[in-house]
Amino acid sequence: MARTNIRIVLDEPSHPGNIGAAARAMKTMGLHDLYLVRPDAFPSAEADARAVSAVDVLHRAQVADELQEATGDCQLVIGVSGRLRELPLPPLDARAGGQLIAQEAAAGSRVAVVFGAESTGLTNESLDACNYQLKIPANPDFKSLNLAAAVQLVCYEIWMGHSASPAETPISSPHPVQHQEPDGTPEDETAYPTQDEMAFFYKRLEEVLEDRAFYGSMNPERVNIKLRRLFARARPQDNELRLLHSLVGLMDRNSRRLKHER
Amino acid sequence: MARTNIRIVLDEPSHPGNIGAAARAMKTMGLHDLYLVRPDAFPSAEADARAVSAVDVLHRAQVADELQEATGDCQLVIGVSGRLRELPLPPLDARAGGQLIAQEAAAGSRVAVVFGAESTGLTNESLDACNYQLKIPANPDFKSLNLAAAVQLVCYEIWMGHSASPAETPISSPHPVQHQEPDGTPEDETAYPTQDEMAFFYKRLEEVLEDRAFYGSMNPERVNIKLRRLFARARPQDNELRLLHSLVGLMDRNSRRLKHER
Repeated sequence: MARTNIRIVLDEPSHPGNIGAAARAMKTMGLHDLYLVRPDAFPSAEADARAVSAVDVLHRAQVADELQEATGDCQLVIGVSGRLRELPLPPLDARAGGQLIAQEAAAGSRVAVVFGAESTGLTNESLDACNYQLKIPANPDFKSLNLAAAVQLVCYEIWMGHSASPAETPISSPHPVQHQEPDGTPEDETAYPTQDEMAFFYKRLEEVLEDRAFYGSMNPERVNIKLRRLFARARPQDNELRLLHSLVGLMDRNSRRLKHER
Repeated sequence: MARTNIRIVLDEPSHPGNIGAAARAMKTMGLHDLYLVRPDAFPSAEADARAVSAVDVLHRAQVADELQEATGDCQLVIGVSGRLRELPLPPLDARAGGQLIAQEAAAGSRVAVVFGAESTGLTNESLDACNYQLKIPANPDFKSLNLAAAVQLVCYEIWMGHSASPAETPISSPHPVQHQEPDGTPEDETAYPTQDEMAFFYKRLEEVLEDRAFYGSMNPERVNIKLRRLFARARPQDNELRLLHSLVGLMDRNSRRLKHER
């Protein structure tokens, strides 16, 4: 069942009532996997009360210390945010986002949909870990959507996306999962790397850049963020990530020396 | 502005928190006209707290004793309900409903969207006063949508419907407002009767049926409800309602006698 591939992640939620209401909103739209990153208070009687008969979603919710823990094994991470950013991620409105999420989940990807804190929304750091930024269309003069209301709308659009999909394995996914190698044999693996695999790639890249004194007078942290955003936007597939790793190998003084010595 | 033609009506809401959250949900989607029919508690500090910066919507909300008071001057009344009924109204899902509401409001009709009480939903009696029943697609195993969450979803679809409309006066409304009389002159009036005009028609019809001893061994109340439902589903336009009044005139012993005496 494709819906089991979809999780809702609340990043630093501060009101337990919203956590409960979000659980209820999820369940009305057939979603059951809730992750909470550094919740202010959880578990809580207020959350249970607002969840009504969706307390099962609350009781199986996973609590994480870091966003990466909640999204690490996912192939697609969508950040819900109405903010404008300097270096924007590929934008999606809620409808297109619901369709994409439903399609990719049906095709076998694990998908995380991340919502920020009530007062501040998603931080730049959290958004940097996302492949897409999902915006909920709303009144430009009053965008103050309640957290649980935002969860309700996005889960509804995911439900509608599932209904629109012809089947669990859609024919025309925008990101086809079945690939052909140049020699014609189909790849026997998932199309997209997980967030953990991407994090490993970033770490390796940054170590090599550090080792090669690449940053010079530039701010290393800022350069690294720009690179992460770039690759997150590009959203490499598994075979492309292998290529990128090979490129990092070319940059790496140690592997070059090894090659040279052979 | 077409959105000023759209009102949200909460029929016997029991939790003040939901009234406040509904006001906030409305305002995020550009709607400001809230009607409350026999609210359990209003105004209330809890409603104000949940409305956050949408308290202006609460403060201008109208309180009514009867649903008809809140919908009487409307040309289109949509009841939000997931229930199955013996004699269903024309069904709409939330998306199609949002489009219809946005289009008709843009074309000049006053539209009411009616939500029932938290525990019971819309009563049959309230649904009988509606032209359409709007259903929010949801998990069939867990349909327990919170009242404010339902308001949020429907207002969002109305917002999306407005965005989809080419302009405030759409070219291809399913119920065109400009009519041509058989002689070619355009009618200088609103296309659809108001709920008050429909109520007057029903009352006149029922008086004539009563006077003509039409009911026989049938239950008059049940017959009347069936007729009201029938006409609500048919949703006559102004000129069609005039025809229906003429038909009632034919049934009316008094007008016949008057005609005969003339």
